Formats: sequence, structure tokens, C-alpha cells
Amino acid sequence: MSVPISSPSLVAEPLGDDDLVLGVDIGGTTVKAEISAAAGPALVAESVPTPRGEAALEAAADLGARLLDRLALADRQRVRRAAALLPGLVDSERGIAVFSANIGWRDVVVGARFADRWAMPVLIEHDVAAAGWAEWRFGAGRGHDTVCVVIIGTGISGTLSVAGRFVRGGIGQAGEYGHIPVRRDHGIPCPCGNVGCVETVASATGIARAYRARTGEEGVDAAAVFARATLDPVARAVVDDAVDALADGLLGVIHAVCPELIVLGGGLAGAGSELADRLHGALAARLRVAPVPQVRIGEYGARAGLRGAALLARRGALA
Amino acid sequence: MSVPISSPSLVAEPLGDDDLVLGVDIGGTTVKAEISAAAGPALVAESVPTPRGEAALEAAADLGARLLDRLALADRQRVRRAAALLPGLVDSERGIAVFSANIGWRDVVVGARFADRWAMPVLIEHDVAAAGWAEWRFGAGRGHDTVCVVIIGTGISGTLSVAGRFVRGGIGQAGEYGHIPVRRDHGIPCPCGNVGCVETVASATGIARAYRARTGEEGVDAAAVFARATLDPVARAVVDDAVDALADGLLGVIHAVCPELIVLGGGLAGAGSELADRLHGALAARLRVAPVPQVRIGEYGARAGLRGAALLARRGALA
Repeated sequence: MSVPISSPSLVAEPLGDDDLVLGVDIGGTTVKAEISAAAGPALVAESVPTPRGEAALEAAADLGARLLDRLALADRQRVRRAAALLPGLVDSERGIAVFSANIGWRDVVVGARFADRWAMPVLIEHDVAAAGWAEWRFGAGRGHDTVCVVIIGTGISGTLSVAGRFVRGGIGQAGEYGHIPVRRDHGIPCPCGNVGCVETVASATGIARAYRARTGEEGVDAAAVFARATLDPVARAVVDDAVDALADGLLGVIHAVCPELIVLGGGLAGAGSELADRLHGALAARLRVAPVPQVRIGEYGARAGLRGAALLARRGALA
Repeated sequence: MSVPISSPSLVAEPLGDDDLVLGVDIGGTTVKAEISAAAGPALVAESVPTPRGEAALEAAADLGARLLDRLALADRQRVRRAAALLPGLVDSERGIAVFSANIGWRDVVVGARFADRWAMPVLIEHDVAAAGWAEWRFGAGRGHDTVCVVIIGTGISGTLSVAGRFVRGGIGQAGEYGHIPVRRDHGIPCPCGNVGCVETVASATGIARAYRARTGEEGVDAAAVFARATLDPVARAVVDDAVDALADGLLGVIHAVCPELIVLGGGLAGAGSELADRLHGALAARLRVAPVPQVRIGEYGARAGLRGAALLARRGALA
């Protein structure tokens, strides 16, 4: 039972409120999936650890199939479309996982495989693109036309919307804010090959690493460093450093397009409004000509990807 | 004989090839104007030094009127529309010169005054916006959808086009690349109030100043510094420094939107393809994740503004 994978341009038709969708978010640590209606909580949801290599795609295919099997027949027949999000480089038009250093794959056909397995059209998208789009159009950025969404997690990347349109990037992938080198002189090496990239300092990984390096204390994650920052001067310094690096990295896009709003999404968004306030302060201290944008915490946190997958499946395109 | 100023949305109708237009570019040093047809050289052209304050606008109004008077009656009747470019902050919809520190004006009605004087609809636009748009759509950037134009002169600013659309900026003015601080630790003060902005190092003014500071030699302008750079190690160091600052400043917009092409426009573009090659090299040395854009010298040089004014008047909008 083979259903051809549909490219975004072929399935632009939005679904009705009664239709169900399957959303799958393949992350570096876990594969999350859920089947949901237009409103209300997910009907079924599950996550599994992400295996390395192509096995990650097999695990995602299995997970989606298992969720579909868990539905009553009447509900199963209402699942019209799926969207699966991948990290790394993604060819969403052709449904191909082009490259992921983290998980370890190169040029794997994903869309057709999932469509075959789940017997429905499947949209393939880059995880951060879908997460940032969801935060912009439906989350903390809704109602704003020029918005920069920064997803802070293991690394840092994001999305940009200009004058109401989602920016995909002329060549390559837009929104790679994490790889802007801001400490080329005195920074630490980034896996990308550069020195002092924003994400070496301001990602959740970077924050935890800096705190460990200064205190020798193991097992303190970025959220805990944020929580300690009011009382612990070392934690405070690490957070200030992260906020400074993020502010420095965002100066270019702010002068280029004058965004109204910067949304901070991803897991670290749990650090809450204090992170937003600090970034706003750091930007206000740096900007003289370009207006200082608002800064807000994303509404979907670490679930932005899954939310984006469901919304993408429902709407048929990042639009 | 009062003709109401038309906002861009009201005069979106492009003119025919037989129609003539008056283009005026009010710069910090000179006011340039010409009357031109769709093709061929200008019928009449003239420039005058820019007085300070509102007198600059009076001088521009006079210059336009003088050019119109120089035409034979049959030609005069073919001049259908004008466009005037202003520096600083410009409200193009309402035809108002909002603010210019250089020339010295604040909230001056310009469009209606020119329209009254010249007896035709007049479009008002920001000088760099029109110059960058012209380079993108008709000059060195034509045929490309995502292009960053950097106009290097007394200061540095530019424009951005994303996916075939010209970016105006969500709040404020887009393309202020010159005021991205890239040397906050060890830079020189910028009139904007920041330290180490791109234009303190990489503008024509900045290059001439740095060379003078290192050699004590007066009267060597930026083009001359470029010309000396092959033989004179001080000139070489100054140019390298300028190119590095420009490359650092552009990292943000490159990671945000992945432009296919960067066009270097304005007077310094006379430094030629060597400037483009050096910037390309500096970017290639800095970029690991975002693709390295092409770099080209603008086709219109210091005439990009006047070219933009004529094209804007002819087309009715920056489109």
C-alpha cells in the first residue's frame, strides 16, 4: 500500500477541524510523536530514545505506526496527513534527510518511506524551521510581521520572518544564529570548525560547560545555572556571558531587518522572563541606531517542534 | 499650480518609454539632479553644493526647476514624474524629511513642496534605499533574489532583499550595516554613541582617517589608500582592517538569511574588484556553516542614488 510522498506544494490544502494529524519530531536525544486534532490534547503520544544512524528513521517509522495502531478504527480513518521533523540539513521538497552530524545520516529518503509505512501523505521539514514557524505564527510571535525566533538547546539556531513572510534563505539554511562567531579572539572551538561561535557560549550545553569549568561541579544543567544566578556569583557571570554572546550575535540581523520582536524558544526558555529581560537589557546597551526589539520567551518551550509538526501537517505548508 | 504629492501606493503605474522623469539626489556634499528618458544619456544634468538645514531642500527645489526650464517645451511636457532622495530618516509615504543629523533638518514637508514647485507628482525616498534597490534590481544584483547591498561612502549602510522582496524593516530602517559594533572593546567612538561601529573602520571616511593617523599624511582619500595598498604596507594594513570589520559586520545578516550575493556600492566601489575579492576572502575565512556568498562591485558607483531616483520615478515604487 504505497502512497506517494507529497511535496509541500502538492498538499497546500488545509485540513478540516475534524481531521487528525500525526506529528513526529526526530531529535538528537528522543523521537517524539503524537496524533492530535485541531484543538484539545493529543489523542495518543509517545517518545523513544533516538538510535544513531538510519536506525533513528526506522524508530520514528515504528513509533508513528504504533501510535496509529493504538487508535480506534474510526479515529484511525480520520488521520489524514503526517509531518516529520528532522535535524541537520533537510530537503523538504524531496523528503530527504540530507545530512545530520549528530545522528549520523547522509542522503536518506525519509518522506517516501514514512508515507509508505503510515499510508498517508507525509511532509518532511527541518526541525528548527517548523518550531520557529510555530512560535512565530501561533505562539509568542503571533500578530507580528518581522520576528526573529532563536531556539536555544544543545545548539542555537532559529528562524526569521520578514514583513509577514517566512525566510527560507537564499542559499543554504537561514537562521543559523548559533554559528555567528562572536569570540574569534578568545573563544572556545566550535564543532563547526570556527572559534567562539554564539552557541559555544550561549547554548544550554555551553552554559553548563562554562559553569562546570569554573566550579568543577558536575551535573548542573543550564536551567539550574539560571536558577542559581541570583545567589551564586559564578552562575551569574556565566549567565551574563551567555546573554552578552547572544546579544552580540543578534546585532547583525537586528540592523539588517529591524525585527519588532525576538522570541527565545526551546528548552532553555524555561529560564523564563528573566532571560528575556536580560537579553533586552544587553541589546538596549548595544543599540544606538536600530530600534531595540521586544524580547519574549516562546510559548511552546521544548514542545515547539511537535507543535510545529502538527500545525504543518494540518496546514500543508509553513504558511 | 498645486499638484498634490502622491504617495507610492497612488502612483504605482509605471511610465511609458517616451515619458521623461526628473531624479534628484540630495547628498551630504552635493545635490545632483538629472532629467532622463528610459534609455540613453540624461537630457540635462547638474549638481550644486548642499547648503545646511532647510536651505538644502530649497536648493534642490531650485535645481529641479532650473533643469525643467532648460528643456525645450515639447520635452518639458513629457516630464511626468519626479523622485527626490533624502538622507537620514525619511517618511516616504507622507513625503517628509524626518531627520538628518548631517544636513540638519527635522520634520520638514518635502514632497508637497517639490510637487508644488515642479508641478508634477513627486516620490520621496531614502537615498540608500533607492540606491540599493537600483543596484539589486537593475545593477550588479539583477536576477538574484536574496541580495545584500552595502553602500560605502562617508558612512556605511545598505539594503536587503529576501526571496525577491525588498526589505523595509519591521521597525525603523533596515540595512544599517554601518552601525553594527564590531570593535566594542578597542574601537573608536562613532557619532551614533557606540564604539567600534563598522563604519568607523570600513567607511571611506574611516579608511582615510586611519591612514592619516598612522602616517601623518594629509589629503589621502580612501580610493588613494586602496590604490597604494599593493606597495605601501601601511595602506595594506588599513585596507585589511577595513575589510575585516566589514566582514565581521556582515556575519549576522549572512547567517540570518543566507544571501546569494553581496554587492558593494557607493563611491568606494571604484576600488574595484580587488575590494570584492578581499571581502570574499575574509568571509570565506569566517564562514563554516552558512554558505559563502558571492561578492560583486556595484555597477552604478556613486551614481546609484541618481539612477535609483530615475528608476523609482519611472516605475512608481521600489518594486
